[in-house]
Amino acid sequence: MDNKEMLEFIIGKIKEPEKKYFVRAQEKLDNLTKPLGSLGRLEELAKQIAGITGDLKPVLDRKYIFTMAADHGVTDEGISAYPKEVTAQMIYNFLNGGAGINVLSKFIGAEVVIIDMGVANDFAKDLPLINKKIGYGTKNMAKEPAMTIDEAVASIITGIKIVEEYAEKGAKIIGTGDMGIGNTTSSSAIASVITGVDVEEVTGYGTGLDNKGLQNKINVIKKAINLNKPNPDDGLDVLSKIGGFEIGGIAGLIIGAAYMKIPVVIDGFISGAAALIAQSICPLTREYMIASHQSVEKGHKAIMKKLGLKPLFDLDMRLGEGTGAALGIFLAEASVKILNEMATFKEAGVSEKSS
Amino acid sequence: MDNKEMLEFIIGKIKEPEKKYFVRAQEKLDNLTKPLGSLGRLEELAKQIAGITGDLKPVLDRKYIFTMAADHGVTDEGISAYPKEVTAQMIYNFLNGGAGINVLSKFIGAEVVIIDMGVANDFAKDLPLINKKIGYGTKNMAKEPAMTIDEAVASIITGIKIVEEYAEKGAKIIGTGDMGIGNTTSSSAIASVITGVDVEEVTGYGTGLDNKGLQNKINVIKKAINLNKPNPDDGLDVLSKIGGFEIGGIAGLIIGAAYMKIPVVIDGFISGAAALIAQSICPLTREYMIASHQSVEKGHKAIMKKLGLKPLFDLDMRLGEGTGAALGIFLAEASVKILNEMATFKEAGVSEKSS
Repeated sequence: MDNKEMLEFIIGKIKEPEKKYFVRAQEKLDNLTKPLGSLGRLEELAKQIAGITGDLKPVLDRKYIFTMAADHGVTDEGISAYPKEVTAQMIYNFLNGGAGINVLSKFIGAEVVIIDMGVANDFAKDLPLINKKIGYGTKNMAKEPAMTIDEAVASIITGIKIVEEYAEKGAKIIGTGDMGIGNTTSSSAIASVITGVDVEEVTGYGTGLDNKGLQNKINVIKKAINLNKPNPDDGLDVLSKIGGFEIGGIAGLIIGAAYMKIPVVIDGFISGAAALIAQSICPLTREYMIASHQSVEKGHKAIMKKLGLKPLFDLDMRLGEGTGAALGIFLAEASVKILNEMATFKEAGVSEKSS
Repeated sequence: MDNKEMLEFIIGKIKEPEKKYFVRAQEKLDNLTKPLGSLGRLEELAKQIAGITGDLKPVLDRKYIFTMAADHGVTDEGISAYPKEVTAQMIYNFLNGGAGINVLSKFIGAEVVIIDMGVANDFAKDLPLINKKIGYGTKNMAKEPAMTIDEAVASIITGIKIVEEYAEKGAKIIGTGDMGIGNTTSSSAIASVITGVDVEEVTGYGTGLDNKGLQNKINVIKKAINLNKPNPDDGLDVLSKIGGFEIGGIAGLIIGAAYMKIPVVIDGFISGAAALIAQSICPLTREYMIASHQSVEKGHKAIMKKLGLKPLFDLDMRLGEGTGAALGIFLAEASVKILNEMATFKEAGVSEKSS
């Protein structure tokens, strides 16, 4: 079975979560000692997780955040405020535990797994870095397709296999994360093509461009779209022409999570673009997604709208790496604690609402 | 020194947090390996906590949530969906660990302290309940003032003393919480008087009224305000005429936190009304407040506007007890972990933004 056949096979196996678990979780929540529905979105979240896992007492004790890194040939067009070398430098920072995602993952009790999906650097073999390099960065999408269709499929399969492997290790919930200088450019291009919203409306300052830099970024994205003409209805085509290896990998994580019936917490803008790819390839994946935060990055709202997701919180964040996903996983765990640990009216001897 | 003199003395001692710590915390944050400001409100939060505590490496290892309970005479007017007995029943639920606040506090590693500020019930002396009973519930504010000025002052002093006591035990951050059937009625009355917004605009369904019940609640609040004529510029007068013992206690917690330079995370609607009282009595307390969540309860937006606070998250919650504060404390702790544990560009050898 080649990669393309494997992807088709896996997509064919993905099912909608069983509705009966949603119903039973709702019944359970409604008997707990609190006014009906008064824990709001925490209750919705608990219900979704019960539905996905088919478990009315889900315990999210094993939590993983997969931070996928890759370089982008389009950095040749001067679309980022930071030099390309920062992708590799940040990998070392991740491995040394000094980045935002390390701090927040440790705090929520999740393990961060760093995956080289295609960084333009050779790392020493003995580093705790998972080497799944598809290439040394993508090609410059302003001049040619970012990658081949085979590479796009391979990046997705990589993400799926990682989830399969960690499901065997007992993963109960996973979060997505990214690192890649230039990847907001690729993500804005994907967002524009798949949502149908103008490039100007989905392109932001990234890590910190000025207005001149932003205009250049917009022009480069338009050039890449006009040149490559990605088919908006074909996620694989979009990924190959204007995507990135880490974006394909994250789309694979999402598809893998749906395949393994594991809730997947989507980080911010880059992960959102990857979620658009995943949804395009397999619409049912959406049922397994939990949107963590509303990113400051312009274009994230259009992505959430297209996905039909409402982020859990809005803290004006735009760091990526999985930092939003970490906070989202905390809320997911809080929600199942409520479902599992609160007393019912009967158990507590508390009078119910007078009707 | 009587209670009133003590309150005046303490208010006189409250100072604005020192600006130099905000500046230094900002400098520290700006050197960490992330695009400038990319952790958004987490950075603001870290800065506020550094400013309040005068500590550039604040460690929030001792966390307390004070859930203050009391009954309200105005329940005689049929303004709640739940019977009055539920206040005492829920105390037992808190003490048995079965309520929402128990689950969330345990999850974030905070201790919940349950305080009887004025429940209409005698509890056994050997329960782990702090007895600070001012009375057996307030009087019915639709017929007379809810309490005397002396009782109002005593409720505030109680809150202040609790913070003093727990500051000695090493409290690094505290959260507020409430329990009291009828207390959304009192809180809506306070919100209307202090914010100047019409009663209709700040009165919601509470624990679950129907539309007829809501109309009755609005009428009762109007009657109480017209009868008692609380002075909008005098928080003590407002508290005594239309407040509650737990609301006074929470206002005291907030004043006590400012006095002891401890960040205080404000729960939802009831705690918001108490924050209005605290701000009215001592405007500087606002600098010490962290607003946790946007409550579903109508009127909470007007409260936040008057306080000049923006809640950290909006999860459609309306449970009270301190459940929102618990999640807020988690975010506060996440923010200081970022400040304390992330590597700087220099330490990590990561290139800074090209200028």
